[in-house]
Amino acid sequence: MTLLKRVLPLLSQLSDYGREKLRGDLSAGLTVGVMLIPQGMAYALIAGLSPIYGLYASLVPLVVYAVFGTSRQLAVGPVAMVSLLVAAAVAPIAEGSPQLYVGLAVLLSLMVGVLQFGLGVARFGFLVNFLSHPVLSGFTSAAALIIGLSQLKHLLGIDLPRSNFIHEILWTAAGRLGEVHPLTLLLGLGSIALLVGLRWWSRALPGALVAVVLTTVVVWALGLDEQGVAIVGTVPGGLPPLSMPPLDWGYARQLAPSALAIGLVGFMESIAVAKVYAGRHRYEVDANQELIGLGLANIAGAFASAYPTTGGFSRTAVNDEAGARTNLAAIVSAGIIALTLLFLTPLFYYLPKAVLAAIIMVAVAGLVDWDEARYLWRVDRRDFGLMVLTFVATLTLGIEQGILVGVIVSLIVIIYESSTPHTAVMGRLPDTETYRNLKRNPEAMTRSHVVVLRMDANLSFANVSTFQDLVLDLDVNDPALEAIVIDMYPVNQIDSTATHTLRDVIETCRRGGVRLYLAGVKGPVKDVLDAAGLSDDLGEERFFLEVHDAVEAAEAAVEDDESAAEPISS
Amino acid sequence: MTLLKRVLPLLSQLSDYGREKLRGDLSAGLTVGVMLIPQGMAYALIAGLSPIYGLYASLVPLVVYAVFGTSRQLAVGPVAMVSLLVAAAVAPIAEGSPQLYVGLAVLLSLMVGVLQFGLGVARFGFLVNFLSHPVLSGFTSAAALIIGLSQLKHLLGIDLPRSNFIHEILWTAAGRLGEVHPLTLLLGLGSIALLVGLRWWSRALPGALVAVVLTTVVVWALGLDEQGVAIVGTVPGGLPPLSMPPLDWGYARQLAPSALAIGLVGFMESIAVAKVYAGRHRYEVDANQELIGLGLANIAGAFASAYPTTGGFSRTAVNDEAGARTNLAAIVSAGIIALTLLFLTPLFYYLPKAVLAAIIMVAVAGLVDWDEARYLWRVDRRDFGLMVLTFVATLTLGIEQGILVGVIVSLIVIIYESSTPHTAVMGRLPDTETYRNLKRNPEAMTRSHVVVLRMDANLSFANVSTFQDLVLDLDVNDPALEAIVIDMYPVNQIDSTATHTLRDVIETCRRGGVRLYLAGVKGPVKDVLDAAGLSDDLGEERFFLEVHDAVEAAEAAVEDDESAAEPISS
Repeated sequence: MTLLKRVLPLLSQLSDYGREKLRGDLSAGLTVGVMLIPQGMAYALIAGLSPIYGLYASLVPLVVYAVFGTSRQLAVGPVAMVSLLVAAAVAPIAEGSPQLYVGLAVLLSLMVGVLQFGLGVARFGFLVNFLSHPVLSGFTSAAALIIGLSQLKHLLGIDLPRSNFIHEILWTAAGRLGEVHPLTLLLGLGSIALLVGLRWWSRALPGALVAVVLTTVVVWALGLDEQGVAIVGTVPGGLPPLSMPPLDWGYARQLAPSALAIGLVGFMESIAVAKVYAGRHRYEVDANQELIGLGLANIAGAFASAYPTTGGFSRTAVNDEAGARTNLAAIVSAGIIALTLLFLTPLFYYLPKAVLAAIIMVAVAGLVDWDEARYLWRVDRRDFGLMVLTFVATLTLGIEQGILVGVIVSLIVIIYESSTPHTAVMGRLPDTETYRNLKRNPEAMTRSHVVVLRMDANLSFANVSTFQDLVLDLDVNDPALEAIVIDMYPVNQIDSTATHTLRDVIETCRRGGVRLYLAGVKGPVKDVLDAAGLSDDLGEERFFLEVHDAVEAAEAAVEDDESAAEPISS
Repeated sequence: MTLLKRVLPLLSQLSDYGREKLRGDLSAGLTVGVMLIPQGMAYALIAGLSPIYGLYASLVPLVVYAVFGTSRQLAVGPVAMVSLLVAAAVAPIAEGSPQLYVGLAVLLSLMVGVLQFGLGVARFGFLVNFLSHPVLSGFTSAAALIIGLSQLKHLLGIDLPRSNFIHEILWTAAGRLGEVHPLTLLLGLGSIALLVGLRWWSRALPGALVAVVLTTVVVWALGLDEQGVAIVGTVPGGLPPLSMPPLDWGYARQLAPSALAIGLVGFMESIAVAKVYAGRHRYEVDANQELIGLGLANIAGAFASAYPTTGGFSRTAVNDEAGARTNLAAIVSAGIIALTLLFLTPLFYYLPKAVLAAIIMVAVAGLVDWDEARYLWRVDRRDFGLMVLTFVATLTLGIEQGILVGVIVSLIVIIYESSTPHTAVMGRLPDTETYRNLKRNPEAMTRSHVVVLRMDANLSFANVSTFQDLVLDLDVNDPALEAIVIDMYPVNQIDSTATHTLRDVIETCRRGGVRLYLAGVKGPVKDVLDAAGLSDDLGEERFFLEVHDAVEAAEAAVEDDESAAEPISS
């Protein structure tokens, strides 16, 4: 039973289910479902797909995540960023063929799902930590600009070639301003005004739905489609057809880098949101189980005509506010979508594309993260630089290249941080046996011939170089040095590379006639030193529990040397 | 003057130069120069080049490194591993054209040099830390096997197609055993016996040179070349021609991944050796200046027909043993090579290729690191796994793929280590105000409603998830919890991502009715918290210098609550 609950987290969510929870889930499910109809269709446009595919992506993945995911409020489905990445990945390969385009989008969902599922099963959830927040934020801001501008053609009613570079889009649009379709523009701007106004008035209103209904009625009543306003047209009814992704090795290889990007970016967006709401409601989300849940949702989606999905920020917020207590809410949302697909698709015939563009533009305007940029400028100038770098790289080099730059920069930061741990030369606090960092405690006392060092990190291949330099620096600068005491208390683990370096350090000290003492070596570390033969190499008499005892022993040894040397010199 | 000495480290090495140092440098330079002649020619064979290119690579790069490098014993020049990587990179592109092959090898040297120089100038020397020792060791061992077997054709005197897969080489060789040329095999095995015997007898003997001279004389005297023993043949005399690498963008793109691999692997091999000897002689090597030195050596080499070079292990050891005190030794070695090129190349006509193959095989046999494998098995089982993984990947997937696997695995380990710092729930040691890890100090006392936590790392994007979970785990498991004290003493830095997480944690605690206290926050961290508005958010009264004071305050607040609640309940 426990195993079953771990594999199917929904079961434990439902273990103490009652009327109050049901009311919350029903209300939230209805609200999000109604919100999903226009959003899903709009996001499908970003992905370069027909609107109906946005609805397909809002059905099966929701139900599958609801069963396997650990977050109780997370609203899975099509999101703007992943949609943009899908378009960037599929468009260059599918040039011209709509059927192939859909096939590739679905194949991508399968690949993303398999990747996420595999990472989850292999317990690689810790990878969530490897993209830094400013990098994600810079990327999101740039992507929001690109997404917003990609909808310009629908808003202006002119035909613009697809591009991921905003200067290209703006330049081409400026050259064709004369072709703008006034009625379309009016509808679009009106929708934007309506959306912003409704949101300002009350966040609880389903603004997008109101705009969709209103503009559809207007187009139908006034026959605007006959005057050149682009409409969605016939939307096929019924549940999504079962699809078999084109399992073509050549396509899969071409899509692989994109699948990696979508899998990781999608997961990171999702887990960040999930953790916030898990914290608020005091339950745990498990990163590995989340990967499994999202992975299965994408795999199942691939067989039901869905393109890649993940947990989205805005709908999750609405879901929570509307009272979602368990994943039943998501199943209710999926039910709304199913009913829509079965009975309501004829109503979308007169839906103008301009309103979908307006919905997208209003949604992504909030993603350009000016506040974060200002915050970083104030709090952390280096992170500000990272954000700007990723932002500029995404706008100038392209979307996937922007992510790549962000990943590389994040990795470099991690390597840098790992390889430069905090180190300290320590002194004894007056009238105590306590040793502290000299820089922070200038009153601490040092001895003439004995230096006490500390490195605040586990000794591993990533930082042995710093450790070695810490000792070598001393060696070079201070010929009067007689003994070095290393405070090993912060070291909880030591890897094999570090044992080699420690052997080099012991050897260096011996050749230099400097005694080396280790203080506060913890049990597991001592075991490794024993196995590596370093305890014998250094000598057990050089190990001490407390820094102070090691220093005393070193001092005594130095005095012995001097008194032994005296008779000769005198 | 100081700047000049920093840019040209040779100047400071020569500042107190005397007769004794000169004697050491002359002796070491002569020894290494004599050793370089056969080694250089042999390594050129590994790289798939004519032997003469090994001598070219032993000339200009040595002099340039001598001027710009910080190591005083490092012997730069062609090395086995880099030669193998050059062959793996160039052979598939240059198929069939010897002239193009040379051009690409020289272009590769330029690219490697520019990469290393750029990384050095940008202070990216810390990247040296990102390949773990077991990964390098596994890769080296596999490469040694591949290098050794690649010479089998010269030893057996049969024609084998080039391959980087040992099973292919062995399988093809087995099928052609009937074609083995007995005289060649005899010469080769004889040379191996001679090399091993001489090394066993005395390490100071230039064994390779003895073998080369002996076998050349034998081939010439007995006319073995007319009986089918492959000889080196005409070697062009004179200093290397100035070369202009083919600056072709297409080739450069194809070679880029290899240049990256060679640049990093070469640098890591070199700096590891340099650090060992710097430690023994008590001076410092600067990783960034080393990158600049090796980079300039490779760039200059590219214009003098050299293929990529780096600091090698075996010649550096010989250089040091023979008494090298400054980089003048390397300049002496280069002088020997120059004299050889000017006057001695006719003597190489009868040099049998089998003896070069023998030299290589004996040299790389020592690189298969059985000792390290046994050591890792004993000391660190996870590192043993990494070594085996890289070893197997290099043998089965290919050389560059093997490095790639090693790099990825090393990165995953770094990310994993960064994202899972040591954490502790702490208790108060009896009769003190000191708080320590409960797990290590089971006698430490805990309070009922106040939990003290500590994470031993700087708070950054890589580990905030662990930090968040540390607090959330408590929250979930212990409903009686009233206050959390976080010991911030180990935190020296906090980045912007961590400030967001800390805000989430503060918010989570507030919603859960749990008081949060921070103890021992250091100055720079407090500044960031102030700038981020977190100090105001939490309230200045929640900051304490000592853990004990924070715990006392938390206890007092809990009691206040209870006494305030009492009148209502009673």
